[in-house]
Amino acid sequence: MKILAFESSAVSASVTLTEDERLIAQSFQNCGLTHSRTLLPMAESLLANCGVPLGDIDVLAVAHGPGSFTGVRIGVATVKGLALGAGKPCVGVSTLEAMAWGARALGGGLCCVMDARAGQVYNALFSIENGVPRRLCGDRAVKLADLGEEIGQTPYFLVGDGADLCYNMLKENCAGLVPAPPELRYAAGYGVAAAALPLARAGRVCDPQQLDAFYLRRPQAERERLSRLSGQN
Amino acid sequence: MKILAFESSAVSASVTLTEDERLIAQSFQNCGLTHSRTLLPMAESLLANCGVPLGDIDVLAVAHGPGSFTGVRIGVATVKGLALGAGKPCVGVSTLEAMAWGARALGGGLCCVMDARAGQVYNALFSIENGVPRRLCGDRAVKLADLGEEIGQTPYFLVGDGADLCYNMLKENCAGLVPAPPELRYAAGYGVAAAALPLARAGRVCDPQQLDAFYLRRPQAERERLSRLSGQN
Repeated sequence: MKILAFESSAVSASVTLTEDERLIAQSFQNCGLTHSRTLLPMAESLLANCGVPLGDIDVLAVAHGPGSFTGVRIGVATVKGLALGAGKPCVGVSTLEAMAWGARALGGGLCCVMDARAGQVYNALFSIENGVPRRLCGDRAVKLADLGEEIGQTPYFLVGDGADLCYNMLKENCAGLVPAPPELRYAAGYGVAAAALPLARAGRVCDPQQLDAFYLRRPQAERERLSRLSGQN
Repeated sequence: MKILAFESSAVSASVTLTEDERLIAQSFQNCGLTHSRTLLPMAESLLANCGVPLGDIDVLAVAHGPGSFTGVRIGVATVKGLALGAGKPCVGVSTLEAMAWGARALGGGLCCVMDARAGQVYNALFSIENGVPRRLCGDRAVKLADLGEEIGQTPYFLVGDGADLCYNMLKENCAGLVPAPPELRYAAGYGVAAAALPLARAGRVCDPQQLDAFYLRRPQAERERLSRLSGQN
């Protein structure tokens, strides 16, 4: 089964082609440029460089959030467009779960964290068992201080663009935290494809129209509007 | 320090841009196409996609062997050409050592193996200590059976395009061997850049003219010619 997977939920962007468990090609970049400029050219040059037409892909997969509102929308919209044009099914996976698949080589406990601003992180905890991430909790937006209390002294590798933030804020009270090495720190397409593979094999795919983003929180503009409205009442 | 690193010693090809320990961008492919067709376009689109001109790179790094004669030549020649044109220093690193850096997240013992044909593998053994690979032996061409005897029951992750071959031939006598997961199995540019960074920081760079390939064995044509010549004597 050939999967073309997209990840653009945070600062990095990545496109990956897999066949079953095998990594065939991956492009990754974390250079601060807008994903709307880089994601589609990455996919085009990856497929062209491998001599694989889009029609040969079985499933299009995407990290559907949580993450940056703009980043998640760019990834989901790109996959919707490609899948609709090429008549392919889609799989959306949690960005945090994709990170855990990508960093599974570290083994043990993984604390996946993305900077959600305002003292919060998007977070999920995983335990790697025989190379497969097992969830210890659902995806959530959580205050850093609350996460620190929950973790305590339990050892976890920190994965994701919130790893440095989390390490610096919590290291004094959470002595078991270790930032993942830089080559496995950020979500990449391989993790998305690896998380999507068991779902696709089980037939848990969707039409492009049904693919949606999962933000966990309302966008800032909506939060501010709601706050203004409640203030008026 | 910005390093642009190339890996094309075996079946996969990869180009990576790093800044110090940080991974900025990486392209990887293992789709069977000739590296002479894919390596330079990968480098060009990676730099263009990141908005980084070649002139901004501090050091060009390459896996200089052991490996496929053609693959190693393509990598070394590409880096020589780019470095000469742009007036940049070079660092050549062992392909096997680059693999160990790339798979260091696995921890423990790493047995890096490339299929050298004729019952042999190119091999080196490493122990990962605090995230840094420590060499347990030099790069060598070794018979699979001899490698099996040396390894015995010691636990090692198998890394490289010879991992499956080695696992299938030795698993009965070497119960500690475990193939690395597919996303860390093959040499990629990040490992080349990570192996090159301490050398570049120590000033152990060379001019493009001095950069050379290290094959460990003579090419097959030379071996056959020597064998014919010795038969004639």
